[in-house]
Amino acid sequence: MKKYRIVLSEREIPQAWYNIQPDLPAPLPPPIHPGTGKPIGPQDLAPIFPMELIKQEVSQERWIEIPDEVLRIYKLWRPTPLHRAYSLEKELKTPARIYYKNESVSPAGSHKPNTAVAQAYYNKKEGVRRLVTETGAGQWGSALAFATCLFEMECTVYMVKVSYQQKPYRKSLMRTWKAVVHPSPSNLTNAGRKILEIDPDCPGSLGLAISEAVEDAATHDDAKYALGSVLNHVLLHQTVVGLELKKQLELAGEKPDIIIGCVGGGSNFAGLVFPFVADKLKGQTIELIGAEPASCPTLTRGPYRYDFGDVAKMTPLLKMYTLGHSFIPPAIHAGGLRYHGDAPLLCLLVNKGVIGARAYFQNEVFEAAVTFARTEGILPAPETAHAIKCAIDEARKCRSSGEEKCIVIGFSGHGFFDLGAYEAYLDDKLEDFAYPQHMIEEALKEVPVIEG
Amino acid sequence: MKKYRIVLSEREIPQAWYNIQPDLPAPLPPPIHPGTGKPIGPQDLAPIFPMELIKQEVSQERWIEIPDEVLRIYKLWRPTPLHRAYSLEKELKTPARIYYKNESVSPAGSHKPNTAVAQAYYNKKEGVRRLVTETGAGQWGSALAFATCLFEMECTVYMVKVSYQQKPYRKSLMRTWKAVVHPSPSNLTNAGRKILEIDPDCPGSLGLAISEAVEDAATHDDAKYALGSVLNHVLLHQTVVGLELKKQLELAGEKPDIIIGCVGGGSNFAGLVFPFVADKLKGQTIELIGAEPASCPTLTRGPYRYDFGDVAKMTPLLKMYTLGHSFIPPAIHAGGLRYHGDAPLLCLLVNKGVIGARAYFQNEVFEAAVTFARTEGILPAPETAHAIKCAIDEARKCRSSGEEKCIVIGFSGHGFFDLGAYEAYLDDKLEDFAYPQHMIEEALKEVPVIEG
Repeated sequence: MKKYRIVLSEREIPQAWYNIQPDLPAPLPPPIHPGTGKPIGPQDLAPIFPMELIKQEVSQERWIEIPDEVLRIYKLWRPTPLHRAYSLEKELKTPARIYYKNESVSPAGSHKPNTAVAQAYYNKKEGVRRLVTETGAGQWGSALAFATCLFEMECTVYMVKVSYQQKPYRKSLMRTWKAVVHPSPSNLTNAGRKILEIDPDCPGSLGLAISEAVEDAATHDDAKYALGSVLNHVLLHQTVVGLELKKQLELAGEKPDIIIGCVGGGSNFAGLVFPFVADKLKGQTIELIGAEPASCPTLTRGPYRYDFGDVAKMTPLLKMYTLGHSFIPPAIHAGGLRYHGDAPLLCLLVNKGVIGARAYFQNEVFEAAVTFARTEGILPAPETAHAIKCAIDEARKCRSSGEEKCIVIGFSGHGFFDLGAYEAYLDDKLEDFAYPQHMIEEALKEVPVIEG
Repeated sequence: MKKYRIVLSEREIPQAWYNIQPDLPAPLPPPIHPGTGKPIGPQDLAPIFPMELIKQEVSQERWIEIPDEVLRIYKLWRPTPLHRAYSLEKELKTPARIYYKNESVSPAGSHKPNTAVAQAYYNKKEGVRRLVTETGAGQWGSALAFATCLFEMECTVYMVKVSYQQKPYRKSLMRTWKAVVHPSPSNLTNAGRKILEIDPDCPGSLGLAISEAVEDAATHDDAKYALGSVLNHVLLHQTVVGLELKKQLELAGEKPDIIIGCVGGGSNFAGLVFPFVADKLKGQTIELIGAEPASCPTLTRGPYRYDFGDVAKMTPLLKMYTLGHSFIPPAIHAGGLRYHGDAPLLCLLVNKGVIGARAYFQNEVFEAAVTFARTEGILPAPETAHAIKCAIDEARKCRSSGEEKCIVIGFSGHGFFDLGAYEAYLDDKLEDFAYPQHMIEEALKEVPVIEG
């Protein structure tokens, strides 16, 4: 009998996160303090992160136990299903077997709660009363609001003003989960006031919202800051996805040939594929592909060097593929993928050739999204659709070559909050943005030159 | 170890729907032809429904096999999980054990695809190329668009114009699933044109959209009409919900004391509780409660008599609790519950005292919704929140009495498309509507007097 969904029981939920750090093929370049040029230490991060997360950031333990209180909340939606995409296969007339790991079933609609719940827990445990963050499209802000609400903490979200106005439903969702949402720039921080003085109508940016959130957390004793991607501990928490996937593929009797996820800051993709990296390093043949927008082609066109994580240069310097911290990607609908850099752990593996990357234009991505929705019936987020586009391309290659590959898609989130973008695509009103090389080079001129 | 979700495997999905007709405590009064005053026969329904559904409408077989092609699509999201609401219980400090059966995980976000998929299948099998329907808030239209898309059929949806304008995302979702969506009144039908001549700015109504959809189907050979609730075959298809629930409660070692669902046309609630009705008739103590809006109090305040199913008096007369076919409920946000009548099967059981009903105001319903979202983390649709409100009341009673009852909520859909209503509630801008008795009596004057 055909199996459509591979579902694990509650007992099979992973009991520990997988920390890739001891298994890396080369040492991870440390974050650098921009003032001293020296690696930063735990004390530098203590004002904005709780100690347990700082420890996870640098841990060399391969397995880190998931606390019971976190597991309890994971069980609201985890383990998530692995679906076999029979209808998509049929549509593509491919001999490939396509699967998708469905993280859209979380209450916030994406993979983001996997780390939001963990971060809220460790902060709460260390006496933090309030978490502060920024959000662009709203996925991360929603996830953190959800998590803090369940732990009875407060949550402050600085939401890029243009998103705040264009996506009022995301704001309402955060408010329903008790978060206080401010359009950024706000007059609540120095960073915000400074901008508003110059330009009262400033639409905001993610970089600016980060500056406001960090300032808020750093200047209030009972508050800490939370980040939804890029950092090691965030990627660590997302490995529940790949660990479940591994079990599910075994149950299905499959060995994956290709695993594909979309990449913004890299946490969704890393969580999906890191548990397979050790196998690959031991010689197993498996392709791991990150799919990113052609309008923000970090992994495919950026150099691998130290850069700031934010526009305002408040973060440590991280070694990563970067388009320059001053790079402003065009306003594509996959807002979650508009980040100038990428997670250092992921970048190291791309640099060592363990992980590959591809970039796609907006219209071909939405074409793939609609094909998926019309065959599999589930509506993907625009971010997720990048991975689907890549999988469709690979499945079509199999059609030509006759190869019966096993292809796995990381289905990171649903598109119920992105229907305006679908409408624009259906009405043939979506633009394709590619970034001209000279503009990337321009932005890279502002990146500090640091050896490492 | 605490069990948070009771999840069934694909193998445990029901293989047959449960038809309650042979188990009814009294014969079901037949639908009456308004012209002849006689019971209608299959030939009267043949222009708008396929024969297999007409047969199901009157079948006396207790079990009706679910076709493989329908099961194949059900497996995209079925079996759905049964959750234990530990956090809600804790918040309410109740000794009651609260469960919720989660139908919001379907690709369209509600229970509606359970029948949409079945209806699309039988129509396709009998050579129908296109299905036509109406939709108010958009849940049913989305579900039918989803189902027809997967069966590679066409779908035409007449969407109440005011919803079409206020809920553009629902329209975009239907378009993504290839449906053609017309704001109703449209100039595509006589019914629509007639209204537009008198009032070009008419905002439309569900009754009028039904008239347009039925006319479209009846006047095109390759098209049929599909209804999302009320009729026997629709309730039949929804019994997969209650059948799964029964298995899941057994696995949890529970005997339910109270099962609660929201009631609009009655299909969600019937699907949830019908598999438990036979047990109740055999003497098992179990309370089955339908929760409806105080602004449209069909079961709690309407008389039990024959009435039309639609405003335009195009349908057969059905024996049901009714507020009168000309009754226009206030524009509450639980659009799916704004129906003047209820499913005849359900009404018979209410009339015989097997099933009970309660009515709630809008603000108390949203208060319950927010309590649920803030404890269990999942955002309910406003319709679903009626059942949650009732469950919270019952759980509070247990707190007073010390009774350790097992209470089950039918979680019929998520609220991602209803965040405007949540925002209004959070901003204290929601109105409570109750319907004055004299206005109900006024509407009932138009109901034809028929014995039976």
